[in-house]
Amino acid sequence: MRNLKLIVTYDGTDYGGWQTQANAPTIQATLEKAFQTITCEKRVHCVGSGRTDAGVHALGQAVNAFTATPLELPTLLKAINSQLPADIAVLSIEEVRHSFCAIKDAIKKRYRYVIDDSRIPDPFLRRTAWQPQKPLDAAAMHRAAQCLKGRHDFRSFETNWPNRLSSIRTMFDITVTRHDATLRIEVEADGFLYNMVRSIVGTLYQVGRGYWPEAKVNDVLEAMDRREAGPTAPPQGLFMLYVTYA
Amino acid sequence: MRNLKLIVTYDGTDYGGWQTQANAPTIQATLEKAFQTITCEKRVHCVGSGRTDAGVHALGQAVNAFTATPLELPTLLKAINSQLPADIAVLSIEEVRHSFCAIKDAIKKRYRYVIDDSRIPDPFLRRTAWQPQKPLDAAAMHRAAQCLKGRHDFRSFETNWPNRLSSIRTMFDITVTRHDATLRIEVEADGFLYNMVRSIVGTLYQVGRGYWPEAKVNDVLEAMDRREAGPTAPPQGLFMLYVTYA
Repeated sequence: MRNLKLIVTYDGTDYGGWQTQANAPTIQATLEKAFQTITCEKRVHCVGSGRTDAGVHALGQAVNAFTATPLELPTLLKAINSQLPADIAVLSIEEVRHSFCAIKDAIKKRYRYVIDDSRIPDPFLRRTAWQPQKPLDAAAMHRAAQCLKGRHDFRSFETNWPNRLSSIRTMFDITVTRHDATLRIEVEADGFLYNMVRSIVGTLYQVGRGYWPEAKVNDVLEAMDRREAGPTAPPQGLFMLYVTYA
Repeated sequence: MRNLKLIVTYDGTDYGGWQTQANAPTIQATLEKAFQTITCEKRVHCVGSGRTDAGVHALGQAVNAFTATPLELPTLLKAINSQLPADIAVLSIEEVRHSFCAIKDAIKKRYRYVIDDSRIPDPFLRRTAWQPQKPLDAAAMHRAAQCLKGRHDFRSFETNWPNRLSSIRTMFDITVTRHDATLRIEVEADGFLYNMVRSIVGTLYQVGRGYWPEAKVNDVLEAMDRREAGPTAPPQGLFMLYVTYA
């Protein structure tokens, strides 16, 4: 068997998230079906670096898949893409060591959240940005966010804590920048809790619209109570950017 | 009655074009319905500067509408937008002289056509770009296009000629430029024939992919025969940018 590492991009609008489930089309199931059609194998299990939720997008989701196909990689890449719908594309395929696991070997991940804060939402951004129709102060949001850098217990930003053994994570980078009519909130950490990016965004949003002072973000972090944080921002603004491996 | 000039943007993907028709939702019918809901008038006729075809988008379609509503313009703008679906937005409303007509008073229009020429089409561009999966030579396309500048009979680029009294138009500007993974073909003229932008794009595409020499574009123009030009490029790459009035 060969172990293949894929970089996958998708518009998650019309999917029930990454992980295969009974009631909705998912990215994983669609990708596995494309693989199975090409390789004629009964099951090609595709392991994603992390589950993305319903409606969340990816520019560089990392995936590994075991297959016995003898196809050369450029041929396989073309063949898989020919079987995928237009809202999912495999950008690259490489062969990796047998022990490589897209989940366990990830050392950091970077996400972007896009907000179109114009009073009149841009129709072309409705699937790929949150459009709250409130002008936001990006500089204030950036300053307020800096207290989240470093190693902290992020349970205030986890939906239905506890989901994991520990809610301690290390945030390597968090930035809020304006790009024309949109804000980009980018976060990079050694791992993320359930809804962590979206609840951080909902918290910074309260600062950006002037409801909360900048210092409140640190109070939320220290409270270790999800009820202190802002709302969970909607999924359509969230993009998994890339995953870093050792 | 007040005569209002609107600037409207729309994602045309899910519409049968600008003009009201029996069998498909259209931009005009959707806009008129929003107006009628707000003003309680029986019919508010919205005149667009030009019809856009099914699947074609607009960043700045100009429209004029007669209404007796006493609402102030900022209030009317908010109210109309609150009634429109997320894929249509009115960007501005101003009151204009009674004799203003969005069609007749237009002196030039600018369109953009977007091509994603990457081998692996970007899922996020599938609704807003043509994705032929052929790398194109933008510089060759730009050079080849320059012969179209000026006053010419463009019937070689008109579907089902003749649709109008004359197929002579003046092209003020035509450029092909690369922006990351996409090409933008922008054209500005005193008017456009039916499918003119899309058949110019289909012709330049033959040059860009190396099928036709650059000089062939002038041969096509001089032939005055639609069969000499390239294919009509698909609608999803086309954007009406803006209309200029005297």
